[in-house]
Amino acid sequence: MNRIEIYDTTLRDGMQAEGISFSLQDKLLIAKCLDDFGVDYIEGGYAASNEKEMAFFHEAANLGLKNSLIAGFGNTRRASASLEEDLSLKAILNSKAPVATIVGKSWDMHVTEVLRCSLEDNLALCSDSTAYLKSKGLRVVFDAEHFFDGYKHNPQYSLKVLEAAAAAGADVICLCETNGGCLPRDVYEITKTVADAISGPIIGIHCHNDTDCAVANSLAAIEAGARHVQGTINGMGERTGNANLCSIIPNLKYKMGYEVLKEGALQKLTEVSRYVQEIANMQPVANMPYVGDSAFAHKAGLHVNALMKNKATYEHISPEMVGNARKLLISELSGMSNILAKLEKYNLSNDRDLARKMLDKVQEMESNGYQFEAAEASFDLLIKKTLGTYKETFHLVKYHVNVERSGSGEKTTEATIKLTVDGETEHVVSEGDGPVNALDEAMRKSLERFYPSLADMRLVDYKVRVVNAKAATAAKVRVTIESRDKNDIWGTVGVSENIIDASWKALKDSFEYKIIKDAQESR
Amino acid sequence: MNRIEIYDTTLRDGMQAEGISFSLQDKLLIAKCLDDFGVDYIEGGYAASNEKEMAFFHEAANLGLKNSLIAGFGNTRRASASLEEDLSLKAILNSKAPVATIVGKSWDMHVTEVLRCSLEDNLALCSDSTAYLKSKGLRVVFDAEHFFDGYKHNPQYSLKVLEAAAAAGADVICLCETNGGCLPRDVYEITKTVADAISGPIIGIHCHNDTDCAVANSLAAIEAGARHVQGTINGMGERTGNANLCSIIPNLKYKMGYEVLKEGALQKLTEVSRYVQEIANMQPVANMPYVGDSAFAHKAGLHVNALMKNKATYEHISPEMVGNARKLLISELSGMSNILAKLEKYNLSNDRDLARKMLDKVQEMESNGYQFEAAEASFDLLIKKTLGTYKETFHLVKYHVNVERSGSGEKTTEATIKLTVDGETEHVVSEGDGPVNALDEAMRKSLERFYPSLADMRLVDYKVRVVNAKAATAAKVRVTIESRDKNDIWGTVGVSENIIDASWKALKDSFEYKIIKDAQESR
Repeated sequence: MNRIEIYDTTLRDGMQAEGISFSLQDKLLIAKCLDDFGVDYIEGGYAASNEKEMAFFHEAANLGLKNSLIAGFGNTRRASASLEEDLSLKAILNSKAPVATIVGKSWDMHVTEVLRCSLEDNLALCSDSTAYLKSKGLRVVFDAEHFFDGYKHNPQYSLKVLEAAAAAGADVICLCETNGGCLPRDVYEITKTVADAISGPIIGIHCHNDTDCAVANSLAAIEAGARHVQGTINGMGERTGNANLCSIIPNLKYKMGYEVLKEGALQKLTEVSRYVQEIANMQPVANMPYVGDSAFAHKAGLHVNALMKNKATYEHISPEMVGNARKLLISELSGMSNILAKLEKYNLSNDRDLARKMLDKVQEMESNGYQFEAAEASFDLLIKKTLGTYKETFHLVKYHVNVERSGSGEKTTEATIKLTVDGETEHVVSEGDGPVNALDEAMRKSLERFYPSLADMRLVDYKVRVVNAKAATAAKVRVTIESRDKNDIWGTVGVSENIIDASWKALKDSFEYKIIKDAQESR
Repeated sequence: MNRIEIYDTTLRDGMQAEGISFSLQDKLLIAKCLDDFGVDYIEGGYAASNEKEMAFFHEAANLGLKNSLIAGFGNTRRASASLEEDLSLKAILNSKAPVATIVGKSWDMHVTEVLRCSLEDNLALCSDSTAYLKSKGLRVVFDAEHFFDGYKHNPQYSLKVLEAAAAAGADVICLCETNGGCLPRDVYEITKTVADAISGPIIGIHCHNDTDCAVANSLAAIEAGARHVQGTINGMGERTGNANLCSIIPNLKYKMGYEVLKEGALQKLTEVSRYVQEIANMQPVANMPYVGDSAFAHKAGLHVNALMKNKATYEHISPEMVGNARKLLISELSGMSNILAKLEKYNLSNDRDLARKMLDKVQEMESNGYQFEAAEASFDLLIKKTLGTYKETFHLVKYHVNVERSGSGEKTTEATIKLTVDGETEHVVSEGDGPVNALDEAMRKSLERFYPSLADMRLVDYKVRVVNAKAATAAKVRVTIESRDKNDIWGTVGVSENIIDASWKALKDSFEYKIIKDAQESR
């Protein structure tokens, strides 16, 4: 069998990540997205845990999912409860999910020290819980918790647990590397033993990233015979995270030649990753393999030069294969090839004269501390200025920033801005938490009647870096600002020996970029 | 041989990461930190690239490094240049570094399409460049660029390149997985073939994380016989990053039983990771394996409960083994062990009462965005305040900062400070290049008649970091300042939603630390 089942647990195990919590609405949006993407299973949550979890299952049933089956998660029954009265099993049945995923103990130490029942009793719990759910017509995934650690301590017992679940009719036996401490070699060997010993159910793998090997461990299990893999979008999850499906899926498809999802799904991978990131309100991780913003970014002049000759020189796959894009960074190591490659995006790479002027300008600005790699919008404005197509959207008459602190710690921060737009003057004052915030507020206040669409723009990140640290507080600072609106994210940059003025320059570029962008779109 | 050489390339390949650039001062600080940690090699930079890179080598020679050898990086000679006149080789020799790392092409396609010379000529470049550097008494690491991709296309030629470098006397032959597209199985098989074919030099491995397998690939090469591993702290590097030494080193030591670094070094791992993160001004990645803030964080009640019974239930290793800490609650806070470790430096670790008070205070400040890792002087003042031995050196009545810019770009920056020392009042005004510089100048002007030794103090670095980026310009900022005089370097920190006020707090600590230090020394 050459097809691998993809089981997503973003909504259950992913939610164990520090700082992550999903509303019911968030969960429904992600489920819809995962179904469009085409994963085989969506684990919706721990059915017995609370009302919100249960509400998800009931509303998800009405989403009209086309590709994915919803799975309800729970434990094997408690030793003290009957099958019919066990809360966890009852909740799974009440969820009406077509798939039940139950977690059973497969490490003897956990049975005796945590569950505190006999090893024999635990086998019965695993067996009868599985058989009971099967008798209700559900597809059953049996998650063998701590399987690998358990196997290392007591292989016979761990295998017995799997045999009990298999004999009771489990459709999938999933080996969980719960503590994340294994390396690929162990995972391969142990999974191979299981695949040889257990026939009937599909073997699955569920890894965590504590040794930085969750992806490699998942692939090792598949090489050893597993055909079902569990993980989360962006590797979200407790501690160091779950195995990252955004890496596993393209590796399976492009590197190992397995069938996964449906034809064409991989081209949506980057979009899926960023969508979940947005909903989870996670900090973007630029260097995430395949889907990160920097995953196909090239900085060194030599590399860029080689890429122009042949893309395979410094790219392992083409970024389009995962819906991502190549990025050529303008850096202190910039050369002509970087500039030409950038201009390609604007269909201007044939204009050698423009390229030469841009190179001179960029090099001059770089030597003054500018960096455009996180500031595409400032670069875009620079092209317009060099081409002569730039038209000022507003004209600053002056700004003024005032910060005061008394001995008792009381602070006042105020910014005034005076500017003109098409001959009309605005002169406003705003307060703020700090000087940049006050400037930002004053800018909005002064520009909003001319450019109402500024209302949907907001600053999302603000970075400061000293450019020449030797001169310390008299050195130059580079401020990079990231802004966004409904559709886009853009970066701008400003440099000055004065941090307020550097911030002002980056802010000004951000406002201008937004205004020009909206004017073009409305044309 | 059971010992693995650790080769750090944070300062060279790590700097290729998007958004990363190190000042000379940054590079020297990181080199010092890596030497304390005990890596075998520190790759200092691309010697021929610019003045700053060369200045690093010359200053690093005076750092008095105890454990690490500095390596200068460059290419094999150009086909058109003689050995003596080749700029890259010349720069390596001028750097006076005891180790030369030269990168040679080992993929035939790169030789013909990028280098544009014959396959035979390339063998000569690899061979004579190696022999030349050996003849000058250097230890030579030969980096075989694109080795794995090259081997897949033309195994005979790729091996010939290695044989040429080996025959010419290379001490290490490092197999570079330059494009990062391989999986562990390939890396294992190919490295095994090399290890069987090449005798003499140590075999090394250099991986990138494009398939999310850089760590597993590095370990696979070591299983196959490599004994030298290259990577970066925190996996910094171009695209998806280099192999993360912070994961590789503990895996080698604790999971595979190899010897690495010196006894006790692993306990500094988390500190090293965070120090480099701070200097690079990187966003902290909480879920980084071993060293991340969440790496040993437990959220699920069931897990916490099981942990109370037996730590092994949900932890693959004890966090202390890598200098990290367990986190059982949702909190960003320091633990007692961190505080005791800090107080040890002051011979105060036996004072449990002080430790408890410090823990409360530090936890409160950390939850407000403070971090004391690069701010020992602020921590020192905090101890004095907690012990009750702190005496105010001056009292601020108020400060006032004013920044103004006209449309023509003319700027005025002014700071006034009013303070008292022993009942005497000073009220001064100063201009500056920027608001922090103006404040610094005003501080000196107001304090110099009371504390003349301030004249030999200067600020050498100034860093700003947004603490909660989600709120953008209204978020808190943390300012870290590094100051020095003839004898010492010290760091201080300030946090505020107002960048001017955060800078003021860090400045104030720096002045106070200097004044108190000089008073103690003159006693």
